[in-house]
Amino acid sequence: MGKHKVLNTPAIRRMPTYLHKLMLMQAAGERFVSTSKLADYMGLDPIIVRKDFELTGIQGTPGVGFKTVELIASLRRFVGWDERTTACLVGAGSLGSALLGYEEFAEYGLRFTYVFDADSRKHGMLIHAHEVLDVRKMREYLTPAPPDIGIICVPSSTAQMVADELVQCGVKAIWNFANVCLQLPHDVIVQREVIAGGFALLSMKRRSHGAETGQDD
Amino acid sequence: MGKHKVLNTPAIRRMPTYLHKLMLMQAAGERFVSTSKLADYMGLDPIIVRKDFELTGIQGTPGVGFKTVELIASLRRFVGWDERTTACLVGAGSLGSALLGYEEFAEYGLRFTYVFDADSRKHGMLIHAHEVLDVRKMREYLTPAPPDIGIICVPSSTAQMVADELVQCGVKAIWNFANVCLQLPHDVIVQREVIAGGFALLSMKRRSHGAETGQDD
Repeated sequence: MGKHKVLNTPAIRRMPTYLHKLMLMQAAGERFVSTSKLADYMGLDPIIVRKDFELTGIQGTPGVGFKTVELIASLRRFVGWDERTTACLVGAGSLGSALLGYEEFAEYGLRFTYVFDADSRKHGMLIHAHEVLDVRKMREYLTPAPPDIGIICVPSSTAQMVADELVQCGVKAIWNFANVCLQLPHDVIVQREVIAGGFALLSMKRRSHGAETGQDD
Repeated sequence: MGKHKVLNTPAIRRMPTYLHKLMLMQAAGERFVSTSKLADYMGLDPIIVRKDFELTGIQGTPGVGFKTVELIASLRRFVGWDERTTACLVGAGSLGSALLGYEEFAEYGLRFTYVFDADSRKHGMLIHAHEVLDVRKMREYLTPAPPDIGIICVPSSTAQMVADELVQCGVKAIWNFANVCLQLPHDVIVQREVIAGGFALLSMKRRSHGAETGQDD
């Protein structure tokens, strides 16, 4: 893996928080932002915030900070959210429903194009304005124009099967919320969301009170 | 913040994945585990896995690896999951329901003692065997024996108010799923879960194809 570029994971994880706050500030008419203000809001050292911004290629003006509109554009471009991302979601249970209703995704260019579930009682139902389709028809819907990403919210026991199916439909990137590491071809990009990871961090912070990494590492 | 100990965030975030897999291996009768096998499963460099394990204070035996039972105990102790953590959850919407139904939490010692919601139609309902209580009675329930952590799953607009209330009830650690950075007294530990953080990482991996950080950084 030495040949690969290493991503600055904590910095990238902070990007949506910066973006969301910056867009609120922009909406409130704040044309300039200082790193110290954002650092204060997020409970981080201003140096970390400045480094995160510089990662995206933008340079601030000393004493003035950043133009809000330019900073937003720079962060978006950096993450790849200047373009739309289409997604199909498989598994319309409580977690899937929560994702479909997560308003900020629109800000980040994420658009749900298909929602699938195995439970026939859910077929035809609307969840946050998305119709639930029969998972057995996935291939029929997706193959002609595969979405950019597939989001897996099914139980662990069926996650691998669903992932295989998505890959066969031509999906090249998977966001996996199931508690299993998927075994997929190397050209498929996988991001696994481990909800319990945050609980691990919280537990560590409680144990070693005073350890400080900000609110959302 | 220089006086604080810095936590190895990515390593800590991997702990639940190791633990879950190790417990499956233990249940399957595997008394020893090698770092390379776990590294392979998780799509990580074996060196990273070895360093993660050493963080917890355990030493493997060359050529043999680790005793599964000892490794599990070491990881658990390190994160603080050798003790029970009691939690109250506020906001029994789709995300809250997903958390209440997340089976692995029991493995990590997390136990939900109270569930609150503002919606009177939900009061008395059972969600994954937890009764939903009136959020206005939070103080009455929590003050006599505050839970170890408070989990916030309410909309962003009310998250700060709920957090203030939890702190007034004596809660000292908060796991925040709302898209807002809470402003709380310094002795309160806050962990914010940014679901979109994973989407940022996935987007970056898609942009810079070949960048490799494993499936769940």
